Amino acid sequence: MRVLGIDPGLAIVGYGVLDYDGRNKKLVDYGVINTPKGLSVPERLEMIFRGATELIEKYKPDEVAMEELFFNTNTTTAINVAQARGVLLLVAHTHGPRLYEYTPLQIKQAMTGYGRAEKKQIQQMVKVFLGLNAVPKPDDAADAVAVALTHIQMCGFTNTFSIK
Amino acid sequence: MRVLGIDPGLAIVGYGVLDYDGRNKKLVDYGVINTPKGLSVPERLEMIFRGATELIEKYKPDEVAMEELFFNTNTTTAINVAQARGVLLLVAHTHGPRLYEYTPLQIKQAMTGYGRAEKKQIQQMVKVFLGLNAVPKPDDAADAVAVALTHIQMCGFTNTFSIK
Repeated sequence: MRVLGIDPGLAIVGYGVLDYDGRNKKLVDYGVINTPKGLSVPERLEMIFRGATELIEKYKPDEVAMEELFFNTNTTTAINVAQARGVLLLVAHTHGPRLYEYTPLQIKQAMTGYGRAEKKQIQQMVKVFLGLNAVPKPDDAADAVAVALTHIQMCGFTNTFSIK
Repeated sequence: MRVLGIDPGLAIVGYGVLDYDGRNKKLVDYGVINTPKGLSVPERLEMIFRGATELIEKYKPDEVAMEELFFNTNTTTAINVAQARGVLLLVAHTHGPRLYEYTPLQIKQAMTGYGRAEKKQIQQMVKVFLGLNAVPKPDDAADAVAVALTHIQMCGFTNTFSIK
């Protein structure tokens, strides 16, 4: 099974591709789609659309895992993240993989066993779970790998749910 | 010049198509894209993607006007509206018309001269400005026509701005 984890954003979309055979996990690729600040929002959304389409066509994931959004931050940023996330959901859906979303709490618990873990702790656990020499960089890529790992941790359990 | 006004949403996207020759305005079409409640968010985003693509290919607007989002409502609804709006911006941008956005305050002022006007008042002014027998139905279509009218009212002025 191949899982694509996505950390949505307008300026940076993180992604991580994991293979899992029921026992072993392998990090196939990770990285980010960057969109330049000087471009308009619609131009940046188009870059995300093209970048995500390329990723899904290249790696053909069986399942896509994305973090659920909560708005407790700057409103303009939040709107832009949600707008980008809409485009990412569209791309993922039209290419066929099953879609799953996880709350920040679920990701923290799956990765560290602790619902109030810091971001850095989660990123450290990405390194540990995958036996890497270092945490994947940049942070957005590590966050995306963490969502994919969360999905793998939870996918045998009944509390996994697809996006409604 | 042909303007497509859009009122973004996940359940209902309103649209209104106006022609303007510098003096006269003509309502070419209006209506809504409805997405059924029983579908998942990604399925509904795909319906919006297809519906908006059809509209833009059919009417070939020169300019698209959309209301700017503010989040003072239910968070899940707000996230879904923003996700849908991201898809709508993507579709509009990839088809070439210039994109403009207007705040609720700008729409109220352009339509009624009063920044605290009620929705019903704005919808009444849609009828008056276009010499219609009745307010376009449903409300989402009337709201979309109001955004297109706002754009026409403001497009000769320096405070018109495209989406950044």
